[in-house]
Amino acid sequence: MVNPQTVLANLDELRALTADEHGAQRVAWSPTWLRAREWFVGKLAGLPVEHHHDAAGNHWITLPGESEKALVIGSHLDSVPNGGWLDGCLGVLAGLEVLSSIDREYNGRPPCTVKLVDWADEEGARFGRSLFGSSAFAGAHTIEADRTRTDRDGTTLEAALAQCGVSVDRVGEAEVERKNLAAYLELHIEQGPILERLGKPLGVVRGTKGVERWGITFHGQEAHSGSTPMEVRRDALAACAKLALEIRPIARKHPNSVATMGSVKTFPGIVTAVVGRCEATLDMRDLDADVLASMLREAREASERFAGEERCTVEWSKIWSIQPIPFHPDLIAMCDEAVREVAGTSEQLPSGPLHDAAEVARLGIPTVMMFVQSLNGLSHNRAEDTKREHIEQAVEALNRLAEKTIAWIGHQ
Amino acid sequence: MVNPQTVLANLDELRALTADEHGAQRVAWSPTWLRAREWFVGKLAGLPVEHHHDAAGNHWITLPGESEKALVIGSHLDSVPNGGWLDGCLGVLAGLEVLSSIDREYNGRPPCTVKLVDWADEEGARFGRSLFGSSAFAGAHTIEADRTRTDRDGTTLEAALAQCGVSVDRVGEAEVERKNLAAYLELHIEQGPILERLGKPLGVVRGTKGVERWGITFHGQEAHSGSTPMEVRRDALAACAKLALEIRPIARKHPNSVATMGSVKTFPGIVTAVVGRCEATLDMRDLDADVLASMLREAREASERFAGEERCTVEWSKIWSIQPIPFHPDLIAMCDEAVREVAGTSEQLPSGPLHDAAEVARLGIPTVMMFVQSLNGLSHNRAEDTKREHIEQAVEALNRLAEKTIAWIGHQ
Repeated sequence: MVNPQTVLANLDELRALTADEHGAQRVAWSPTWLRAREWFVGKLAGLPVEHHHDAAGNHWITLPGESEKALVIGSHLDSVPNGGWLDGCLGVLAGLEVLSSIDREYNGRPPCTVKLVDWADEEGARFGRSLFGSSAFAGAHTIEADRTRTDRDGTTLEAALAQCGVSVDRVGEAEVERKNLAAYLELHIEQGPILERLGKPLGVVRGTKGVERWGITFHGQEAHSGSTPMEVRRDALAACAKLALEIRPIARKHPNSVATMGSVKTFPGIVTAVVGRCEATLDMRDLDADVLASMLREAREASERFAGEERCTVEWSKIWSIQPIPFHPDLIAMCDEAVREVAGTSEQLPSGPLHDAAEVARLGIPTVMMFVQSLNGLSHNRAEDTKREHIEQAVEALNRLAEKTIAWIGHQ
Repeated sequence: MVNPQTVLANLDELRALTADEHGAQRVAWSPTWLRAREWFVGKLAGLPVEHHHDAAGNHWITLPGESEKALVIGSHLDSVPNGGWLDGCLGVLAGLEVLSSIDREYNGRPPCTVKLVDWADEEGARFGRSLFGSSAFAGAHTIEADRTRTDRDGTTLEAALAQCGVSVDRVGEAEVERKNLAAYLELHIEQGPILERLGKPLGVVRGTKGVERWGITFHGQEAHSGSTPMEVRRDALAACAKLALEIRPIARKHPNSVATMGSVKTFPGIVTAVVGRCEATLDMRDLDADVLASMLREAREASERFAGEERCTVEWSKIWSIQPIPFHPDLIAMCDEAVREVAGTSEQLPSGPLHDAAEVARLGIPTVMMFVQSLNGLSHNRAEDTKREHIEQAVEALNRLAEKTIAWIGHQ
């Protein structure tokens, strides 16, 4: 029997230990994060588990089973600065309670091995490299790029990791942890408004959306705001403004697509000059690779059309992209069942934000995520919240999903 | 007889003395500006003139005449950093040649007094306070606001002026210079593309446009770019983008109106967040006060409509404004005549940029400006240029205008 109250009590305890009046401060590689992890080790007392940190700083807890094939439940204890009380740590603490419950259920010897992983630095809040630990595990890390990253005080990633006992040169060795992994489950808050709008406590994540992230620069002609007639201007902001509006109908053609212009910078950027150069960012996401590619193509064509209309030019430069990563159909079906059993209703949705689960799924390890409703769609700040009864349902459903997955692993 | 070649030779000399490979560096209150002024004093040798600096640092050169009533020709030697070879100094050096020509014409005793003024710090490039000297002269200075202004190195305006022998507390005493002033003439490059597009070397300025300069802030809701569906967003950038486009048809309803959104800032301004707050600037100008007021009203209404459409709110805060300042009809007519006599054609146009002439005209002193064509409408950078034959025509026309104005003063 799983006990959701234990999870709520642990969440409250962790909040008291690691949050201040601005929110959670468990930024990876910081003293507060290390304190959270130390506190977590204390919670393992009495469980017949082995635990260790891998070469990338991920924390693995293993409850050995009859078979070496392993079910893994994972998430992350680190937070953004001024973060919420649930993002990441809910999944770890719910996973701990599920592992404890399995231990009790099978008297310390479940049919397959069960692991819990607390990934290191999911948020990338300090060095701008998210999914640090899980991408090292997945072999998708980029040591040479990461080595020279610095935080705002000029401390290098390399030095910060060394203080936590992690050597940048060796993070790739985390891939030894892949051995015998048969399935991966992750519970997370939705961080969006969809489940709340549908009135559903829990949902099943079909996969993480692919992302196309680009920098777009319009070049026009800087000119005096007083002496330059409207008809001769080459206003880079006007071209950019048209694109800021056009990405919305492009995204709305598809049910789950999103497109965001999150940053606009104007140069010279003064009240008395027509904008000569305008730099913007575009972030587009969809679960379907073809849809994503067509959105990108349409946005690009639109930008060129608008540049032409305003007698400007436009340049695109890629910031980052990732393919959509669909989760495993069997696990999606079992997660849907578990959610229905507990909540009476379910919803399948893609995840817009990335999660460590995406790195695991990329390796071909069968993976699924469960979302619990977020209030007002807020996350990454202290207003982040979820009803306590929904957290209880989430722990129940995760436990049922784990049981179903253990059975499924037995049949593989 | 006026000699335009002298003016061209002096312009070349001044450029050699005060420009580097990036352009003119005669920023007010700087050593280079002081060197330019010292060089200029040398050019007064042999003229029967008195000259002195007033309490605001304006340099006055006086050729006494039969009457104490004075014709004043003025402009400024200071430039923006990396400025052009003509902005400001053309008017001073052309004025010097016209004053010399009048001296020769009347054997040192013209019918009325003729003055030349080199205004201090027209550009406001270092401390952000343009028209410094002429507004002190006009009584429109704001000592308390100016005293605490600092340059980018943290030097206060007060300290920089003290180094040049000017006391901030006493700049208002420059108003003693207003005595007996009967008319003010200023020759300047257009700094815009209108005369070039019309194929006309010279134009008559009808007045300086009124300016409404506002900060506009749209408030929406910061949200995750991956997890927030398009239909629930409150995107402050979208509302601002609509306004950036809408100010253009608002301005185009009127023949000489301009409206410019010169700066847009997005917050948090990151690739992964919907813009929660968007700060923009708006600069609108017209020679007609009613037209300007109606443009402002329409822009404001549009901003509120767009904020509503995007479920955002909008706030306006005034940065600065100035009424349109029309020039004197008699002087406009004489300037038009002088321009036609020299160039065979004329054009009357408003000035979008402000000039020291606006401060003089505000006092009720009959004022007019003459524009000479700019190439490609460029100014405030080293690419600023005007054909040498057009400069010659400008000096000729200014001399004719001065002669007509001396006669006109005699009839007042």
